[in-house]
Amino acid sequence: MRRLAAEGLGSFFLFATVIGSGIMAEKLSAGNDAVALLGNTMATGAMLFVLITMLGPISGAHMNPAVSLVAASRGELSWRDAAAYIAAQLAFGLLGAWVAHLMFDLPALQYSVKARTGAGQWLGEAIATFGLILTILGTVRYRPTAVAASVALYITAAYWFTSSTSFANPAITIARSLSNTFAGIAPHDVPQFIIAQLLGAACAALVCKALFDDSTAERGGRGKD
Amino acid sequence: MRRLAAEGLGSFFLFATVIGSGIMAEKLSAGNDAVALLGNTMATGAMLFVLITMLGPISGAHMNPAVSLVAASRGELSWRDAAAYIAAQLAFGLLGAWVAHLMFDLPALQYSVKARTGAGQWLGEAIATFGLILTILGTVRYRPTAVAASVALYITAAYWFTSSTSFANPAITIARSLSNTFAGIAPHDVPQFIIAQLLGAACAALVCKALFDDSTAERGGRGKD
Amino acid sequence: MRRLAAEGLGSFFLFATVIGSGIMAEKLSAGNDAVALLGNTMATGAMLFVLITMLGPISGAHMNPAVSLVAASRGELSWRDAAAYIAAQLAFGLLGAWVAHLMFDLPALQYSVKARTGAGQWLGEAIATFGLILTILGTVRYRPTAVAASVALYITAAYWFTSSTSFANPAITIARSLSNTFAGIAPHDVPQFIIAQLLGAACAALVCKALFDDSTAERGGRGKD
Amino acid sequence: MRRLAAEGLGSFFLFATVIGSGIMAEKLSAGNDAVALLGNTMATGAMLFVLITMLGPISGAHMNPAVSLVAASRGELSWRDAAAYIAAQLAFGLLGAWVAHLMFDLPALQYSVKARTGAGQWLGEAIATFGLILTILGTVRYRPTAVAASVALYITAAYWFTSSTSFANPAITIARSLSNTFAGIAPHDVPQFIIAQLLGAACAALVCKALFDDSTAERGGRGKD
Repeated sequence: MRRLAAEGLGSFFLFATVIGSGIMAEKLSAGNDAVALLGNTMATGAMLFVLITMLGPISGAHMNPAVSLVAASRGELSWRDAAAYIAAQLAFGLLGAWVAHLMFDLPALQYSVKARTGAGQWLGEAIATFGLILTILGTVRYRPTAVAASVALYITAAYWFTSSTSFANPAITIARSLSNTFAGIAPHDVPQFIIAQLLGAACAALVCKALFDDSTAERGGRGKD
Repeated sequence: MRRLAAEGLGSFFLFATVIGSGIMAEKLSAGNDAVALLGNTMATGAMLFVLITMLGPISGAHMNPAVSLVAASRGELSWRDAAAYIAAQLAFGLLGAWVAHLMFDLPALQYSVKARTGAGQWLGEAIATFGLILTILGTVRYRPTAVAASVALYITAAYWFTSSTSFANPAITIARSLSNTFAGIAPHDVPQFIIAQLLGAACAALVCKALFDDSTAERGGRGKD
Repeated sequence: MRRLAAEGLGSFFLFATVIGSGIMAEKLSAGNDAVALLGNTMATGAMLFVLITMLGPISGAHMNPAVSLVAASRGELSWRDAAAYIAAQLAFGLLGAWVAHLMFDLPALQYSVKARTGAGQWLGEAIATFGLILTILGTVRYRPTAVAASVALYITAAYWFTSSTSFANPAITIARSLSNTFAGIAPHDVPQFIIAQLLGAACAALVCKALFDDSTAERGGRGKD
Repeated sequence: MRRLAAEGLGSFFLFATVIGSGIMAEKLSAGNDAVALLGNTMATGAMLFVLITMLGPISGAHMNPAVSLVAASRGELSWRDAAAYIAAQLAFGLLGAWVAHLMFDLPALQYSVKARTGAGQWLGEAIATFGLILTILGTVRYRPTAVAASVALYITAAYWFTSSTSFANPAITIARSLSNTFAGIAPHDVPQFIIAQLLGAACAALVCKALFDDSTAERGGRGKD
């Protein structure tokens, strides 16, 4: 119960930040999209650090169905708990999106009309989620205290180096489809994004198994370095 | 006495930074408000890290009446000390605002004419302060060494994701009403902001009690820490 | 093998970030090159922190032939391993560049036409690489846990204070010559950049030997570490 | 000798960064001074973290005569060593400024014509240096591992909240007077800046004595908090 509350609170603040800072950035930047993305990036990265630092010790601070599914596939979370996590992420994340709208005097319920589609952006989402899962599993393995900083900075970079500005999160993709603002995505473009994200996450889980988990043998005889 | 000096010094530099960096940002940005807010955000977040790191071990580095009141309500500070903290925050914070004006060759005494009002912005202030108290209590509970970074980054995010640019501090709200600059707020809009901040802080104190303090049972009776 | 995989993965993400964020930044900034460089810088610095934190414990996270050559010259890596590292950096780094192009719906194979030449820029590359090697060896010596942050922030600064925007990496210089985008460099300007980088790296290796390695005597014979 | 080499190397890179990133920022920003200051700030803050992390364990990484003088006045450095430190800071810092000019194909020797004068800016320099010394002494006292981050972030904030963009360093003030670029200051405005800096530093030394050094007694009976 406390873990679900943590996932809910975290998703509420994360989604409100992604969408709210996008609204603020677009409103102030007068059409300069690079400056708007700087503000959106800084706010999202900063909030991720805060939430993972604070809520990580309670629930792991997934706030992302792709992360919860990978955790379940690795046996670190029961499938039943993963389902509950995902429900909490979606429910409270949507609440966060609506509160962001209300803060800016916009109607709570909206549908985005912003097209985000094409092979390039799908590749972008797959790479973005691949890198996110890699970052989480790799950093947890070797530098557990750096996870909050690494995830925050990974997303900071990924907002810029992927063509899709790195949603990398199925729940946030759904929430963004219900926001006709800077961060939005048209509802009919959502399924392709989510498929790409899940494919990227699955590949990352396999790579991490080979790269980070097989280290017992190799570390046994490390000696020199 | 040393603790009050720390609160005073911290509030002096924090308020001077919020207001001074707003003046600088507006002066240089030639009407591009998104760039101005980037500069204002970076300066405020950076200064919060510095002050909490340095003064936290002395006084807790509240620099915010909402934080001192929550601490008193939790029995971590006597009500009498909280009153003294708040007086120091206001007195030295106002001094910081005046010095910021003098540095930029502006009259020390000013009244803001910038309207900041409406249900959206009040919701923004309530959410902003709710999140700030949550961040402080949650991070102190699990990762005490990360408090300075977390508070700095929370405010960095909150400047962008809330419609009010997140004052989240009754003393700084009063100081800003005496500054007819980028960071200002018209005096007659102040009471509503402060009420929203205190409501948000009170909600956060309740949520934190349930979320962070009940952990003794769940964690298997880890005792006092 | 795991170490080569780590070098490859790291170079893939680093080069994709340098080139991809340059494309995004140029696309959004509408000719404001300072804003474009801010986005490019933030993404590159953030990704460096992530990759060095995660992959450093496996391979050292060089992702840079100049770093691998200095490590070999110091006996920390066999020359044979250094050659394999460099091959992995080039191969997977180029793959990263191509994937960046594909994400943005550009042809994978390109040649840059951006001239980057002249004594000023060569001096810039020599200084940039000198400082990078100094940062790595100096920080490893005294504050090994800070290496990821220091390298990330060194490059953040070097993108701005050197006239060449600090490539400081022979492999990335080659990859950038195959990208006709913001981060590109015309192929015939590549050799001079690489020579300057290697000269800067060699000087740094000498300075570090004097500055950081001779400390046994001065620190009272602290032994081997 | 190693300590002087560290002061020299640090001052070389710090001054080259302050001046070089100013040139780059002005060149790219096409008259948008707020964006230029963002780039200049980010580069300076980042480099300060790198240099203090790496060179702090050798020489203290002062790179600033005001810091060396305060250290001498506190008996942490002999006056003779302080003089040698200051000479190294000036000599290698000027070299850094000249190299910055050469990297950008500008004449090495220049005089600035940028007027920076008036009571507001002098107050700015005094406050900036006061806060810098406070940050150093306060953080060294309670959180020695955070000094690099705190000084870097203090200067990040101070570039924005003071009217003078916070030189806060007599040696860098002299070097900037020899650079007719973004970071410059006309030579005849230098003495007033340096006097203000030294006054601010002296005040800070006194305040720190009362605030941070008298804590033995008070901490002896701290008990509760």
